[in-house]
Amino acid sequence: MSNVIRDAKEPMHWDEEVDVLVIGLGVAGAAAALEASSLGADTLVLERAGGGGGTSAMSGGVVYLGGGTGLQKACGFEDSAEEMFKYLMASTGLSPDEAKIRLYCEGSVDHYDWLCAQGVPFKQTYYHGTSGEPPTDDGLVWSGAENVHPFREIARPAPRGHVPQVEHQGGPLLMAKLCAAVDASPARVAANHRCTALYQNSDGEILGVAARYFEEERRIRARGGVILTTGGFVLNDEMLLNHAPLALRCGMRVAAAGDDGSGIRLGVAAGAATIHMDAISISLPITQPWALKRGILVNRQGQRFINEDTYYGRLGEAALLHQDGQAFLVVDDGTFEKPEYMEAIAGVGESPEELEQALKLPPGSLQSTLELYNRHAENGSDPLFHKSTDYLERLDRPPYGAFDCTTEKALYAVFTLGGLQTDTEGRVLDPEGDVLGGLFAAGRSTSGIAVGGYSSGLSLGDGSFFGRRAGRTAAAFRK
Amino acid sequence: MSNVIRDAKEPMHWDEEVDVLVIGLGVAGAAAALEASSLGADTLVLERAGGGGGTSAMSGGVVYLGGGTGLQKACGFEDSAEEMFKYLMASTGLSPDEAKIRLYCEGSVDHYDWLCAQGVPFKQTYYHGTSGEPPTDDGLVWSGAENVHPFREIARPAPRGHVPQVEHQGGPLLMAKLCAAVDASPARVAANHRCTALYQNSDGEILGVAARYFEEERRIRARGGVILTTGGFVLNDEMLLNHAPLALRCGMRVAAAGDDGSGIRLGVAAGAATIHMDAISISLPITQPWALKRGILVNRQGQRFINEDTYYGRLGEAALLHQDGQAFLVVDDGTFEKPEYMEAIAGVGESPEELEQALKLPPGSLQSTLELYNRHAENGSDPLFHKSTDYLERLDRPPYGAFDCTTEKALYAVFTLGGLQTDTEGRVLDPEGDVLGGLFAAGRSTSGIAVGGYSSGLSLGDGSFFGRRAGRTAAAFRK
Repeated sequence: MSNVIRDAKEPMHWDEEVDVLVIGLGVAGAAAALEASSLGADTLVLERAGGGGGTSAMSGGVVYLGGGTGLQKACGFEDSAEEMFKYLMASTGLSPDEAKIRLYCEGSVDHYDWLCAQGVPFKQTYYHGTSGEPPTDDGLVWSGAENVHPFREIARPAPRGHVPQVEHQGGPLLMAKLCAAVDASPARVAANHRCTALYQNSDGEILGVAARYFEEERRIRARGGVILTTGGFVLNDEMLLNHAPLALRCGMRVAAAGDDGSGIRLGVAAGAATIHMDAISISLPITQPWALKRGILVNRQGQRFINEDTYYGRLGEAALLHQDGQAFLVVDDGTFEKPEYMEAIAGVGESPEELEQALKLPPGSLQSTLELYNRHAENGSDPLFHKSTDYLERLDRPPYGAFDCTTEKALYAVFTLGGLQTDTEGRVLDPEGDVLGGLFAAGRSTSGIAVGGYSSGLSLGDGSFFGRRAGRTAAAFRK
Repeated sequence: MSNVIRDAKEPMHWDEEVDVLVIGLGVAGAAAALEASSLGADTLVLERAGGGGGTSAMSGGVVYLGGGTGLQKACGFEDSAEEMFKYLMASTGLSPDEAKIRLYCEGSVDHYDWLCAQGVPFKQTYYHGTSGEPPTDDGLVWSGAENVHPFREIARPAPRGHVPQVEHQGGPLLMAKLCAAVDASPARVAANHRCTALYQNSDGEILGVAARYFEEERRIRARGGVILTTGGFVLNDEMLLNHAPLALRCGMRVAAAGDDGSGIRLGVAAGAATIHMDAISISLPITQPWALKRGILVNRQGQRFINEDTYYGRLGEAALLHQDGQAFLVVDDGTFEKPEYMEAIAGVGESPEELEQALKLPPGSLQSTLELYNRHAENGSDPLFHKSTDYLERLDRPPYGAFDCTTEKALYAVFTLGGLQTDTEGRVLDPEGDVLGGLFAAGRSTSGIAVGGYSSGLSLGDGSFFGRRAGRTAAAFRK
């Protein structure tokens, strides 16, 4: 069935009419609904699952915020919108959306306050470590590559991961609070409603949607606009094959059942443009114990390819996009520790040569790499990749071993970053850059802040931030 | 102005009615028009330039064909559709379209005969060398990576570049012959006609187009279908930024003026799906003298990253996509020759250490790389990247030098490979994979055979091959 019902004309029979219709109740949908309803718009959220939460509720709950939030100040960290802007422009991929990033950085302190006002609790304490899913209930965490090369030289580092106050996984709490806020707002939520098509008139404007509620099909008019907040497409194999085939090799797709690209496909059928559809976030968790960063990551040629101390949201990208998912983490007896997320041992050896053979690396390659690495490490330098001196030491104590970081054996966690093209107000654009009237989008059904080089919290961050803006814009259009 | 005029209804006033309307007269458009008109369809081609040719006429003219063509046989090369299929499936990117490749290989011998029948001359001689633009008027040439690692181990190598009989650049001759064939056919060509919008009815079907002829706007009905053969989008900076930003760093965009993505945008506005929009062909011409392949390519870390003897359509991809466009071709006095397309010397030195310093590479890095390379080259092996023994020799005769292969200093030639999603019959698909009625496409306005790992001749090849199929399908729909 087609995703778009063309030539829709008023008057027609609608089962329901609202000002703002939000499709999907993850973090972007909740933010859009809260904002639109707070402005007096009659707001309805359709959620295809039995209840709200989506992928946001399965996440670590980190929200990437900065510029001097209350939490950053409470923890004694200085930050500014400008430093945050410099970091994001440098770190989030090849062609980040400058206008969105600028707004996001300038509005970040306010957005933190807004999240607090919705009831999301942030403990005013700092977790000493880097993680997208910190194990404590501390509120502030490093969730990116701010304090490693090359970003520490580009922008003054500050931790910007803001985590709801709960141990381990903040996503469920974040969404519980936001869904409770939606429930307490004038906005209404209709669960088990799947949007199946957009109604589009001959001017290209979106008038409303067709939605399925069990066996029933309902037509819902959206006077101000339809806001698509339906998530990404990491569960849609065909879309991955067509846009981001490497994602198919990752063992873990970070997704709720709704991440099948339905909202993106709805928009495309109506003539919307998509951008950065190849962009994916790929994590290779070399995390705790942190000392593992003293090891070296090598490819199939026995060569290093990145500073091992960078954020694990960047390690996966380096390994999968540029090394064909072929990587080993080499340690010696002095650096060996039992890692949290890696199990497979790729090989061991009493000497670099033996390990090289065990890993089936080209003769001499790993030996050569280790020799050069050790020579510089001894002097506290890493001129190839600029790993921090905190993690630089000679690897020369046998036995040697390697953890298997190939896609077949390690945990590569992936989700999609590309989607509908939107402007800073959440309006969906057509291929000429013109607004497709009546259609809005936010969250991972759009391309947002990150188009590569992922820092944790950017999706919950831009989803909620631009979700609010979309809600505001749509509410302003209500008739 | 919008690219689509929705809710178009019959009867309406059309300035002209035809069976098949082709937009753009490059190789794909010529093939579509020839095929459609040969089947009795009243066929009109709109070309926005003053005459036909497009990017095809600016190309080397190589058509990638095989499976045992008359030319291959005349030159004494054995080939089969199966070996060609294996090579293309392995070499053309991460998720090639198997169905298209299968058809293309099986139909390749016939397609060669068809090109001959249109008057394209192929001298029945073999050029000993690898090139997308051979300097002689020989007909057959290696135009890919068939005979280097890893492809020589995957499929039995055969040269498949079929070049029109003219020295240096075959594209103008190829298009002169095909345009002459169109002129001699019942198909008509209207130059200086720019298609500005598609007329779409409420079922989503494309009825015809609006076209601008100087100051006049004309409406043209296409009873069987509109075939978009408008080329890629490498001249559209905004589309590159949104889909393939690395292309913006390449010094040479292989394009006629029409490659601004207009046909892709027309299709998207009407609800068509696009795929592989990030895919680009990037050449870094390390060509004649071939002996330069005896040098080694190193990145900013002084590491090798590819077998230097592979096809230059692959070298650019390796250097730009995976090494950030940072590469040097290192030679010694024994391997130095004056290259054809490289001018900038990045550095010289009396020793590897001096060259390393001149190139500002990390201390010891190039020395370490050369030491390992030389040790293996002495034994006639390259266990890291498997360069052919033809080009393996120690680099140890001072002085040493490096050609600058960074994007800033070397010739990176780029064009786009992504576009509208079509099936094997040339029909344009919507995001659900359903046919968008009345709309067809071929050539670089679509995603074709190659979605990476370019071999020369694939675009002229799939453009003409699937252009013919689109012409046939559209002709069959005429009412």
